Amino acid sequence: MYFSECIGAHAMTKKPLILITNDDGISAPGIRALISTMNEIGDVVVVAPDSPQSGMGHAITLDSTLFTDEVYFDDGPQKEYSCSGTPADCVKIAVRELLDRKPDLCVSGINHGSNASINVIYSGTMSAAIEAGIEGIPAIGFSLLDYGWNANFEASKAYVKSITKNALAQGIPDGVVLNVNIPNIDKSLIKGIKICRQAKANWVEEFDKRKTPQGKDYYWLTGKFVNLDGGEDTDEWALENGYVSIVPTQFDLTAHHFIKNLNTWDLNE
Amino acid sequence: MYFSECIGAHAMTKKPLILITNDDGISAPGIRALISTMNEIGDVVVVAPDSPQSGMGHAITLDSTLFTDEVYFDDGPQKEYSCSGTPADCVKIAVRELLDRKPDLCVSGINHGSNASINVIYSGTMSAAIEAGIEGIPAIGFSLLDYGWNANFEASKAYVKSITKNALAQGIPDGVVLNVNIPNIDKSLIKGIKICRQAKANWVEEFDKRKTPQGKDYYWLTGKFVNLDGGEDTDEWALENGYVSIVPTQFDLTAHHFIKNLNTWDLNE
Repeated sequence: MYFSECIGAHAMTKKPLILITNDDGISAPGIRALISTMNEIGDVVVVAPDSPQSGMGHAITLDSTLFTDEVYFDDGPQKEYSCSGTPADCVKIAVRELLDRKPDLCVSGINHGSNASINVIYSGTMSAAIEAGIEGIPAIGFSLLDYGWNANFEASKAYVKSITKNALAQGIPDGVVLNVNIPNIDKSLIKGIKICRQAKANWVEEFDKRKTPQGKDYYWLTGKFVNLDGGEDTDEWALENGYVSIVPTQFDLTAHHFIKNLNTWDLNE
Repeated sequence: MYFSECIGAHAMTKKPLILITNDDGISAPGIRALISTMNEIGDVVVVAPDSPQSGMGHAITLDSTLFTDEVYFDDGPQKEYSCSGTPADCVKIAVRELLDRKPDLCVSGINHGSNASINVIYSGTMSAAIEAGIEGIPAIGFSLLDYGWNANFEASKAYVKSITKNALAQGIPDGVVLNVNIPNIDKSLIKGIKICRQAKANWVEEFDKRKTPQGKDYYWLTGKFVNLDGGEDTDEWALENGYVSIVPTQFDLTAHHFIKNLNTWDLNE
């Protein structure tokens, strides 16, 4: 299916329908903060995992059944469903089964922890936003750089609201979703919003090797984040310097710059 | 960590060290065919999931333990480990724990089924290749367009070999991995290899809604693949027209073309 050049440029004549999901699970404080902010902007339907799904990347459930349940957490006007699947599953089942019409926007998060730089690849939060983008729905992933369950989302709310209202008013082009990260500092210290590119950074894993009581080796995955990208136009730079970062993110992964070189390979030898 | 411009340009003075993984599990016929082909090119170490992991996207194991076991499937010269984790986990644990040195190449597959166009996003096969790319290892994902366990990989072998030898000789630049798909047709009908871009296509999900014996609704995810990309430079076009497709694939997801527009948004209102 093809979408018009700018999907989601919303006329604002009626309240937009906003789909909310996340990867920390439907009861996480981050999604509760996002729901409360979105209730000020539109009609909200929540379809989110019934348990934490961090690090799920763009996993989908092919070999297992999916359950959804209508649930109630507070007396807000939103409708809420928990889903046994991954964040990407939540978006798919929302669009095909649970919503009456295509949402005007999908927002995912607010994630407890960074999805800046290479984290976008592993992120369940961003996979949900990307899944919505694939469906032709304007989408934004929001993340706060605090991994704690008790993270304070108060400072995030004004930025989430401003970015969301702009996205609804201006539209987001076909094939692009927004990856928003918010520094974990006091609201008074946040300098503003910067549009960025994804920093070139990675995780250097350190496996914590242990023995079971029966003497068999096993591992826990741990790691150290390493950013050696010196650019001042990256999300990591913005976050380290007190800015909210927005990286426009695409799911056409073609490395167009290498096509010409590949055509010189002697492949049909 | 930074890598030189062209990682993996191999001097061919000694046998390259090749890491093999997949997402269909270590006993799948596709990875057995890949191992047999790679044994003709280099020293092979296999680290692959102990069970099928299709549709896992770029999932990693954060909340669970990881086990590895040295295993033996045939009398080939390769060393093999099964791993309880995802394809991305397999690459991480291979590089950090199981291999003596950084491999010269990582190949993933041969997947039972297409990873062309949007499938790259959901693909465990490609997530392993991308994980290797993030680690600075030249990497290729191979997929045959036959979902059957009894798929015939004979026609694939010559193409897998030619592409692998070129990748070792020419190198693959930092930040790029190759996504190779092979049509499911007789070898004599394959017209050659085409360098392509990722087609703009998607899945239109159809959820198969059922009731448990206790009367609770549940769903199976199914779907129909829809390619409305008319371009003749896409992977889907190549595959439909009898060619092996190679899409150079990147993991910098920045939509650079939208940065200028985003900078016009009134975000700091």
